[in-house]
Amino acid sequence: MNPIKVGLLGIGTVGSGTFDVLKRNQEEIRRRAGRGIEITMVADLNTERARELTGGQVQVVADAREVVSHPDIDIVVELIGGYGIARELVLQAIANGKHVVTANKALLAVHGNEIFEAARSKGVMVAFEAAVAGGIPIIKALREGLSANRIQWIAGIINGTTNFILSEMRDKGLDFDTVLKEAQQLGYAEADPTFDIEGIDAAHKITLMSAIAFGMPVQFDKTHVEGITRLSAIDIQYAEELGYRIKLLGLTRRREDGIELRVHPTLVPASRLIANVEGAMNAVLVQGDAVGATLYYGKGAGAEPTASAVIADLVDVTRLHTADPEHRVPHLAFQPDELSSVPVLPIEEVTSSYYLRMRVSDQTGVLADITRILADSGISIDAMLQKESREGEPQTDIIMLSHLAREKQVNAAIARIEALPTVLSGVTRLRMEELN
Amino acid sequence: MNPIKVGLLGIGTVGSGTFDVLKRNQEEIRRRAGRGIEITMVADLNTERARELTGGQVQVVADAREVVSHPDIDIVVELIGGYGIARELVLQAIANGKHVVTANKALLAVHGNEIFEAARSKGVMVAFEAAVAGGIPIIKALREGLSANRIQWIAGIINGTTNFILSEMRDKGLDFDTVLKEAQQLGYAEADPTFDIEGIDAAHKITLMSAIAFGMPVQFDKTHVEGITRLSAIDIQYAEELGYRIKLLGLTRRREDGIELRVHPTLVPASRLIANVEGAMNAVLVQGDAVGATLYYGKGAGAEPTASAVIADLVDVTRLHTADPEHRVPHLAFQPDELSSVPVLPIEEVTSSYYLRMRVSDQTGVLADITRILADSGISIDAMLQKESREGEPQTDIIMLSHLAREKQVNAAIARIEALPTVLSGVTRLRMEELN
Repeated sequence: MNPIKVGLLGIGTVGSGTFDVLKRNQEEIRRRAGRGIEITMVADLNTERARELTGGQVQVVADAREVVSHPDIDIVVELIGGYGIARELVLQAIANGKHVVTANKALLAVHGNEIFEAARSKGVMVAFEAAVAGGIPIIKALREGLSANRIQWIAGIINGTTNFILSEMRDKGLDFDTVLKEAQQLGYAEADPTFDIEGIDAAHKITLMSAIAFGMPVQFDKTHVEGITRLSAIDIQYAEELGYRIKLLGLTRRREDGIELRVHPTLVPASRLIANVEGAMNAVLVQGDAVGATLYYGKGAGAEPTASAVIADLVDVTRLHTADPEHRVPHLAFQPDELSSVPVLPIEEVTSSYYLRMRVSDQTGVLADITRILADSGISIDAMLQKESREGEPQTDIIMLSHLAREKQVNAAIARIEALPTVLSGVTRLRMEELN
Repeated sequence: MNPIKVGLLGIGTVGSGTFDVLKRNQEEIRRRAGRGIEITMVADLNTERARELTGGQVQVVADAREVVSHPDIDIVVELIGGYGIARELVLQAIANGKHVVTANKALLAVHGNEIFEAARSKGVMVAFEAAVAGGIPIIKALREGLSANRIQWIAGIINGTTNFILSEMRDKGLDFDTVLKEAQQLGYAEADPTFDIEGIDAAHKITLMSAIAFGMPVQFDKTHVEGITRLSAIDIQYAEELGYRIKLLGLTRRREDGIELRVHPTLVPASRLIANVEGAMNAVLVQGDAVGATLYYGKGAGAEPTASAVIADLVDVTRLHTADPEHRVPHLAFQPDELSSVPVLPIEEVTSSYYLRMRVSDQTGVLADITRILADSGISIDAMLQKESREGEPQTDIIMLSHLAREKQVNAAIARIEALPTVLSGVTRLRMEELN
């Protein structure tokens, strides 16, 4: 049988990784897929570099529209990124009856509903394993491996840059700004790291997983996003003393009244496997009602790990493209007409445990006032840490860990605490998840 | 569309778990699969109990042959276990054009080639996610999620009973026999635990994973199997002092000259995530050339975790059974005519690091004699631990960790060491893997 023909849009890091792995393992991949998979066209503005990388074996063009409309191309791999031109090209490829493989989480988290609907109406596949957690086959696990389950929640370390920064901050006791610079020098963070450190990248990914887990449309605009830029070394240290690690988690949870969908720094018990995922590694923990907790761990970024996911999708499409579209795996795990519009809850309605740190005057009655406010607000305390005041300093840090409480109650209590004359700083508030 | 009709052979723990989960989550599963999945027949010798468990909603028969030959049944789920009657029934179901889902690792590890060939010639699917690591979708990950990779090795904690026993031995410093009794009382070990503690169950599972990873027929008879029955508490403790945990691993590795395929107690660096998998949990670590290391963790046994895998297979079959057989996912990941007969290496040819413990006279020159023998055999030492002799006891334990060496060299060196008059015991030898 003739090889299936692939057109690559963009040959940067992941694109060249895909080209290399596909070439190196072509025999093994053909033995699996039952058919060769061959990149025959590459579109990149830097045509010279593209020719160099592909060794003159493929047709290189500057205009990506040539690829998406080329009659010989069966599958378009979109690796341009972003929402603009990538969206146009993907929609055009679909309109031309091409299957699409993409690593573009931003595009799918924002325009996924439109794209999946277009694909459905043309009977083509849009595969996106590479969009979440690099080479870890988490989309496949959620969509197929766990299909027996009513999924209850997902918690993921799904951004390598921030996990690297948090690991370094903890290991070396350094501040965020210092470690960010180091990460940029080492290539773990980009020159403009906003998407990573502000949690936006993680939010794109948890948005996709949430839709797949709970059978609802993607709704990035409802996702609550906090990054790690305001996290201080002292909270990492106090968390450690209390038996916790701080991780930037993407979290989504099914509740009676809706779905929680959020990204923020989170205290996790140090004994959990996921708390021990260090450096640039990713891990996703999924709780299903039948299977219990399962965890998926690996490299979440990089040329070849991401290429691994892109090519797995190419193999899937090669295997399945002759099946009637009604019998393929649906894009969001549930059949398109079976998606439900469960509401995503606003962050004030989220239920969590909380870490509260405040600086107080070291005098009688302070603790009584604070605990009274918390008790009045229905917030109970699970653990407390009071640091001895430094010599000659009439101030001290108090850290409290709460039991489960609703966020708006906690915010109201914090406002009252901050109004106390003996409380000398704003209250630092972090969320905490037991993940069991 | 009418529901797809499933016949269950055997309604023990996993069977009733499958019935319960399928019923509880039927709406969610139908929304995913695009079609209802319904158990309409159950075969079990204990028909009374079967009727009780299924609440009179399905046809219960004592003779499983009625199910495999019933014209209404689309998929047969085999949960009888063992090699005998299960093999006959599976082959009969295939001959009758039924798709088969099974949790029976023993059957597939021993008779898989025959069964897969029968399925191929009838154009039906045999799905077996539940056969390895319970609810963890590891078969799917290996077969589809990592299909871009040249897989290099797999290391798995794939037997919950033995992992529970090893965790308890370490935690409490107890001996194997004591902990086994405890495990039996708690229901973590069966009355006849031979298959688990002798490593046979793990060997069935690593045999299946090895075939899928490397594209070769299943060959259980070539798998080297050692259990944990001869492991003593002292070695767990010494390993701990040296920074290692002892785990019963299923291991398979691709080498230039063939495939290593083995199950045995293994020292693993305590810092590895997989070394921290405790109790009855399972985890599989897979090294691919593109993706690097990925790890899959979860419950490896139990009614509902295993049911989760059985039902995921039912959903897969429901989605894919209309596809032409040539374009489905091949049973062993590689197309049947693309399996290769790579040789499985005999255990003497295996390359590993080694833990060696021996009891010696506490006198000058002992260590020199031993290290000379090792050096002569080309075995270099990575770390050593010499215990102080107890007061009044002119003997002591020496523990050595070697660098990589070939097993037959190590065995030869051990024979020479044991012949030394100053070496007072047999040498305890355990294999050690860095897993990086």
